[in-house]
Amino acid sequence: MKRTLGTCYYPEHWPREIWEDDARRMAEAGLTWVRIGEFAWSRLEPEPGRYAFDWLDEAIAVLGAAGLRVVLGTPTATPPRWMIDRHPDMLAVDAQGRPRKFGSRRHYCFSHEGYKAECAKIVTRLAERYGRNPHVAAWQTDNEYGCHDTTISYSDAARTAFRRWLRARYPGHGNNGDIDALNEAWGNVFWSMVYGDFDQVDLPNLTVTEPNPSHVLDFRRFSSDQVVAFNRLQVEIIRAHSDAPIAHNYMGRVTDFDHYAVGADLDIASWDSYPLGFLEDRVPATVAQQRAYARQGDPDFQAFHHDLYRTVGRGRWWVMEQQPGPVNWAPYNPAPLPGMVRLWTWEAFAHGAEAVCYFRWRQAPMAQEQMHAGLLRPDSAEAQGLVEARQVAAELAEAPEVSPARAPVALIFDYDAEWAWAIQPHGAGLSYFELVFDTYRALRKAGHSVDILPPDPDLLEGYRLICAPGLMHMPDALKAALADSGAVVLLGPRSAARDASMRIPVPLPPALPGLDATVTHVESLRPDTPVTLKRSGTIRSYREVLETDAEVLETTAEGEAVVVAQDRLVYVAGWLDSDAMRWLIKLVSDRAGLQSLDLPENVRCRDTGTERFWFNYGTAPCEVYGKTLPPVSVKLEARE
Amino acid sequence: MKRTLGTCYYPEHWPREIWEDDARRMAEAGLTWVRIGEFAWSRLEPEPGRYAFDWLDEAIAVLGAAGLRVVLGTPTATPPRWMIDRHPDMLAVDAQGRPRKFGSRRHYCFSHEGYKAECAKIVTRLAERYGRNPHVAAWQTDNEYGCHDTTISYSDAARTAFRRWLRARYPGHGNNGDIDALNEAWGNVFWSMVYGDFDQVDLPNLTVTEPNPSHVLDFRRFSSDQVVAFNRLQVEIIRAHSDAPIAHNYMGRVTDFDHYAVGADLDIASWDSYPLGFLEDRVPATVAQQRAYARQGDPDFQAFHHDLYRTVGRGRWWVMEQQPGPVNWAPYNPAPLPGMVRLWTWEAFAHGAEAVCYFRWRQAPMAQEQMHAGLLRPDSAEAQGLVEARQVAAELAEAPEVSPARAPVALIFDYDAEWAWAIQPHGAGLSYFELVFDTYRALRKAGHSVDILPPDPDLLEGYRLICAPGLMHMPDALKAALADSGAVVLLGPRSAARDASMRIPVPLPPALPGLDATVTHVESLRPDTPVTLKRSGTIRSYREVLETDAEVLETTAEGEAVVVAQDRLVYVAGWLDSDAMRWLIKLVSDRAGLQSLDLPENVRCRDTGTERFWFNYGTAPCEVYGKTLPPVSVKLEARE
Amino acid sequence: MKRTLGTCYYPEHWPREIWEDDARRMAEAGLTWVRIGEFAWSRLEPEPGRYAFDWLDEAIAVLGAAGLRVVLGTPTATPPRWMIDRHPDMLAVDAQGRPRKFGSRRHYCFSHEGYKAECAKIVTRLAERYGRNPHVAAWQTDNEYGCHDTTISYSDAARTAFRRWLRARYPGHGNNGDIDALNEAWGNVFWSMVYGDFDQVDLPNLTVTEPNPSHVLDFRRFSSDQVVAFNRLQVEIIRAHSDAPIAHNYMGRVTDFDHYAVGADLDIASWDSYPLGFLEDRVPATVAQQRAYARQGDPDFQAFHHDLYRTVGRGRWWVMEQQPGPVNWAPYNPAPLPGMVRLWTWEAFAHGAEAVCYFRWRQAPMAQEQMHAGLLRPDSAEAQGLVEARQVAAELAEAPEVSPARAPVALIFDYDAEWAWAIQPHGAGLSYFELVFDTYRALRKAGHSVDILPPDPDLLEGYRLICAPGLMHMPDALKAALADSGAVVLLGPRSAARDASMRIPVPLPPALPGLDATVTHVESLRPDTPVTLKRSGTIRSYREVLETDAEVLETTAEGEAVVVAQDRLVYVAGWLDSDAMRWLIKLVSDRAGLQSLDLPENVRCRDTGTERFWFNYGTAPCEVYGKTLPPVSVKLEARE
Ligand SMILES: [Zn+2]
Ligand SMILES: [Zn+2]
Ligand SMILES: [Zn+2]
Repeated sequence: MKRTLGTCYYPEHWPREIWEDDARRMAEAGLTWVRIGEFAWSRLEPEPGRYAFDWLDEAIAVLGAAGLRVVLGTPTATPPRWMIDRHPDMLAVDAQGRPRKFGSRRHYCFSHEGYKAECAKIVTRLAERYGRNPHVAAWQTDNEYGCHDTTISYSDAARTAFRRWLRARYPGHGNNGDIDALNEAWGNVFWSMVYGDFDQVDLPNLTVTEPNPSHVLDFRRFSSDQVVAFNRLQVEIIRAHSDAPIAHNYMGRVTDFDHYAVGADLDIASWDSYPLGFLEDRVPATVAQQRAYARQGDPDFQAFHHDLYRTVGRGRWWVMEQQPGPVNWAPYNPAPLPGMVRLWTWEAFAHGAEAVCYFRWRQAPMAQEQMHAGLLRPDSAEAQGLVEARQVAAELAEAPEVSPARAPVALIFDYDAEWAWAIQPHGAGLSYFELVFDTYRALRKAGHSVDILPPDPDLLEGYRLICAPGLMHMPDALKAALADSGAVVLLGPRSAARDASMRIPVPLPPALPGLDATVTHVESLRPDTPVTLKRSGTIRSYREVLETDAEVLETTAEGEAVVVAQDRLVYVAGWLDSDAMRWLIKLVSDRAGLQSLDLPENVRCRDTGTERFWFNYGTAPCEVYGKTLPPVSVKLEARE
Repeated sequence: MKRTLGTCYYPEHWPREIWEDDARRMAEAGLTWVRIGEFAWSRLEPEPGRYAFDWLDEAIAVLGAAGLRVVLGTPTATPPRWMIDRHPDMLAVDAQGRPRKFGSRRHYCFSHEGYKAECAKIVTRLAERYGRNPHVAAWQTDNEYGCHDTTISYSDAARTAFRRWLRARYPGHGNNGDIDALNEAWGNVFWSMVYGDFDQVDLPNLTVTEPNPSHVLDFRRFSSDQVVAFNRLQVEIIRAHSDAPIAHNYMGRVTDFDHYAVGADLDIASWDSYPLGFLEDRVPATVAQQRAYARQGDPDFQAFHHDLYRTVGRGRWWVMEQQPGPVNWAPYNPAPLPGMVRLWTWEAFAHGAEAVCYFRWRQAPMAQEQMHAGLLRPDSAEAQGLVEARQVAAELAEAPEVSPARAPVALIFDYDAEWAWAIQPHGAGLSYFELVFDTYRALRKAGHSVDILPPDPDLLEGYRLICAPGLMHMPDALKAALADSGAVVLLGPRSAARDASMRIPVPLPPALPGLDATVTHVESLRPDTPVTLKRSGTIRSYREVLETDAEVLETTAEGEAVVVAQDRLVYVAGWLDSDAMRWLIKLVSDRAGLQSLDLPENVRCRDTGTERFWFNYGTAPCEVYGKTLPPVSVKLEARE
Repeated sequence: MKRTLGTCYYPEHWPREIWEDDARRMAEAGLTWVRIGEFAWSRLEPEPGRYAFDWLDEAIAVLGAAGLRVVLGTPTATPPRWMIDRHPDMLAVDAQGRPRKFGSRRHYCFSHEGYKAECAKIVTRLAERYGRNPHVAAWQTDNEYGCHDTTISYSDAARTAFRRWLRARYPGHGNNGDIDALNEAWGNVFWSMVYGDFDQVDLPNLTVTEPNPSHVLDFRRFSSDQVVAFNRLQVEIIRAHSDAPIAHNYMGRVTDFDHYAVGADLDIASWDSYPLGFLEDRVPATVAQQRAYARQGDPDFQAFHHDLYRTVGRGRWWVMEQQPGPVNWAPYNPAPLPGMVRLWTWEAFAHGAEAVCYFRWRQAPMAQEQMHAGLLRPDSAEAQGLVEARQVAAELAEAPEVSPARAPVALIFDYDAEWAWAIQPHGAGLSYFELVFDTYRALRKAGHSVDILPPDPDLLEGYRLICAPGLMHMPDALKAALADSGAVVLLGPRSAARDASMRIPVPLPPALPGLDATVTHVESLRPDTPVTLKRSGTIRSYREVLETDAEVLETTAEGEAVVVAQDRLVYVAGWLDSDAMRWLIKLVSDRAGLQSLDLPENVRCRDTGTERFWFNYGTAPCEVYGKTLPPVSVKLEARE
């Protein structure tokens, strides 16, 4: 595989007369890809049914003539203003019951059939016109599904669609649905919440106190399925006219829809990586970490998403938008340290990226993102990002082809579990994502390369260690596949704590074949009342009490079982702090026969099939295993 | 009086075939009472007008056959889904103007006449059918009035009812009402807020800046009266068919309606005591206290409510729901320390409870409360709560009959004052409840048993000391009764600061016959700018400046009068911190000829007519007045 | 100019029989002015079209007979309840889309034509009746425009008016407007936000993510213009019937409308000065400052507004409402230290006030402001405020006439820049007002008397030093006038960073003729990651990176240019902390040939044409430049 670079470009923002020069400069900088079109609907269809493709024809021709390969985006994230007149009820409705108005982007409800028909029309036109264009080498559907909290809508369209979805989930009476099955699954006898008909079921917002968690979980699953269906509609149209691969650009820590399911319909996963913005607004980091990494970004957050989206893309993945300088949208927007744009780019390649595209070519002087840096300044002078991109391009030109490698360690990330935890955190602020991320960080500090997996029984073979914390629901097939995987499997807390309908199963959890351990009760803890462990570290935030005859590997200071094991199954009855987690990862690595490292705070490493990359996120040089890593640096070694 | 135990049970949640076994186990554990039915409307009336009582007949028979006594709840806190179709406007509306949707519980507005008629119908059916059932030994109306912020509604139904209520409060023109009287009472000439007609008066939400406090106070009184009327409707129906006593289960620190007024129509007051949940979400406690008592609960909060509801029940009171393990609804939900369930139970009895019922028999595996512990685990194994309940049952079997005793000290708690303070705290976060609770805590630390009283002139006799802080409005009869009570009376701050319509009276407050003291002006203080007192401690948050010729018992460091006294009247011109309060309670105790103690932080005591109970809330043994109290312990002595 | 005192009085709140006594006591205390009428609409027009002026005739006669001069307010801030029946859609709508209900004050939308017609009618009646009344010596329009967040409304009336305003701003097609010009100005090609017609443009609330900043800036300008038009309507009516000067009473830190523009139609600017309330709810102060000045108010906040409104009034300005004791509306409401009411009054005169009026004569016992102190207590006894007012009156009687003087230093405050920063702070919490206020405070600590100016090229002559931080947009004429002013000019950060439509200009900012400096990129900083400067202090929150060949006066510790100068232009590429700001003000003062002082924390001074005033805001005596200032004191010296 040849690794490549690219950028995002908006010809419609710039005078026609500078397109050639822009294209030339891109090519000269060593860029291969240029993504265009994804916000241009009002230029492509200025009035309903009146299309204007000439300018796009020309833009593609100019870019192609310069040797660039075009990624063409469908413009469905920004329906034009006239669309609202045609479909006033297409706007999503927020949890407070307010329609979300026109005037920015992503102003649509995934469940609105009228809007979906409009999307099908414009995508059909684009696919017909550009499906065989030699310069259009890839497609992107829409833009950043879920961004700005747009997955979930409480609109009338969503309510209608949810009732239809429920009838399919609880089928009967060919198919008017079996409302008794729904009542049973949700436990609606509680608080007299039983329904007599699917048309009585409303969306679970604005209830007097919390709604039924089973109700919410089905609504979350429905909301995710609506994204999958929306995306599939476009994919099917494009495939009918084009052989170019199709991608979508996901975001960081958007977990409202199942990315594996969307990805299953696509050829490539890509994501938009904004390390500094994310550190301020979504990384689970302490204030001290935010301060320490303000100009570098979190050393694990991007890596986590690289590994996640590699799996979402079934091996093929890109960074579609790479932060090249300060962004505009975080609470604070500092500039990256010199060298960080290069570091981030190489980190993506270390995790197997095919391409890294910088967002955006030139900083826009107008509208919402005018404070977002580009590779060029608004006056077309070179910004720092372009300097570093050019350097990477030169380095790539020297680099060999590379092939991806399966990691020895797998970590399961399950969107359904994320929703279940969000619906019922039990303790304030508890989050499945953060639990998994804590595990990921500990694995990284132990030097492991990691594959992130869906909870799919068919994907578990070939690993030495599988970590699966917090899987609220575990189908029997998954339990069995884990036990049969041949790997050391690390489970808990909250494993299999709920059935598929968000009810507590009896026998009590985790009910793992081959592990004699039962959670008798659980508790959530104030952050200032952790439970001290015998060895070192503490349980924080969430804790389970076990009845067990398994081997006890760690206990509380008072002697209650916390980590138990039987054969290759290891269960942790609580959320461990980083001290305890470090010990635990060492323990399971040893049990799995995996060598583990003990990396300094700022250093991480990652292996491809043939290379080991070392990254120093710190501002001081660092000695590590006989090497000296300069500040803000990447070091590449051949794999031993 | 014989002290008894019980539990809350939902036969409709469990298979028919386990009812007998459940009943047998309850009886064997030593339980007397079983409360049922209060959320079962959708099982009792599955469709409008179609009733299904067979299962309830059977459940009562099974429980009764096991020797248990049934408390039957009316199901009006959970109207079924079909009710919303019949009465779409019965939903309460929140302060933001949003109807609160179906999907949890308490989804009704107390002012909706259509819903009240539906309630009358179902309660009539229940009363007719079970009013003479030998196993139905008590009734409960509805469930936890006011819980989830449900007392106050800004619905159309509430607006209509409020106008009717105002016409009755300001009568005239037989009875179209006297709008001039309302304008005068509210001072509506201010800011041109005068009304020409009662139909112009709206509910006081969403105004541009704060609404008129007199307007809000009348609305708060109206809202409380609506709860009283709602409850009375059910009581009258049940009484017509049954001689069994009627209770309601109140909550902790729900102060939106006048519990004395609701209680006047009932035979028994009961409340739902969740010490750990309350500590996290409603006790006025510092973070240090929340940490120290995370697994024990606040040492005064339950006691306060025991004393309050004893008066609400005119001597007869229960704990209807006692926390038996971790709950599901607080920000953090730890497990109680072993022994706490027993301690809480005995504490209730020490304060005169007739019965303590645990919520709930078996943890439900489904719906909103699936993380709420029961006496049994979801798999029917015994949980810690049942172990301790059985121990108390055994201890009770050995215990003698007990008779309640009047306490030597009274503390007035006035719902009307709570609303007045909430409407006009003057300083951020100032709360009447917290002022009264601070006084209660100081009395308890001084070893006093306390009766909590309404501001009723007829109930003041027989006390040695009466504390009445913060009574914003004091009718002349109350002032006179306090002066004539024979007790030392502790008043201030803010005593009689407003007339009945929330206006400042002239002559200025407190205008107490027999006390030469006038508040010339008041101020609220930043928490970081307390005023130092001469002796020890500070005034914090709220302070009054006095003109006085009375005896000055304490001053600021600069010599301004803070505590003044004349004969048996003592006035405190500010909110004292705990140091100053300790000195003050000692002072007024001495003046009243009451011996006071000085208890350690974790220890409390409480007298019945014949016993003195000692409680150690701490996790270490404690020496106190020659006794050693083990950690988490109850100690019973015969009264000296 | 003779300096005078006054008070605010509400005859309609008090029995007719005490008016004479009130008037007599006012006059005896030495007051000249009495403001009345501004909330009395429901008394003046109790029903639509039925007027009742007799009581007002009489009140004016009584006050005039006592020798007082009346300021007559138009009552349009408090439309009566019947008005809402006539114009249900006149209520403003908040950003959440909720109409703001009747029941307090300022319940109107500035854009509602029906309401404006009603205002014209009542103002016409008042002007006709009292325009030539010998006792009516001044007028006040409405009351505190913008208070309670009332400038901006998202109502239908506002939307309609906004579209009309936009057609005028982007004219064409005689005059249906030129929508292409709007699309171009706003950069609507971004995210396909282009409009086909002005009737498609909505108000910029409730969008999915942030709206287009150009859209919002035009909406903010429109909203300000609506206030100007609303006020002008009244002014034109009054002028047609009266020669008395017309004022409006502005508030502290209300920046939603352009006060210069409103003031241009008026004769006098006045403002309502509540130092203790403001310190708690709007002064940019640290908690330590709030604690230190809890009973004195911020030492610069009132001064800033005095200087601002002197310019708004083109030299003629009053304090219309002066805090005389504790207020009711701040989070905490302490009493001023004895002497502060006198100090605040003299401070106003030191800044050139013609009159200071105390709010209010007697504390009202009813409605929203019952906790707001007056000069009299509710029982008509004297409060502390009256004692100090009487003292000032006596001092004024001894004082000579005074004439205002131009200050040597000017500081530009631009409402348009305030809106631009608010729309796009770039870093959390960054505020133009606070940047300007930081500069003002530093100038004051250096002992300078300051004139605050609008960004008007015609007003810049005659100053030695002009500070103009943060002017986001600078028209070429302003740049030229600054360069030609003859003053040392201090600019940056963010100077000229946007064009008139909120787009980044090319060439890049600041593009100042005569200063070789370009901002290549900017960053916002976490508060815990300041950038250290070479000399002393830091850049905090906001920073620019410069390309420059100008003289570098200060750099970061790492050597990047921060303060650069060329001839008389000085540019600061960041927001400096107070240490760095102190050095900078000294530097520019020296460059301007201005002597600067270095005042202690609690001391300020201010010059009139003939006097130098010294103020000690501290509670300890203070030595300063050879003088001893007692605690809480004013000291007056003849100008050297
Ligand atoms: Zn993006
Ligand atoms: Zn309950
Ligand atoms: Zn005012």
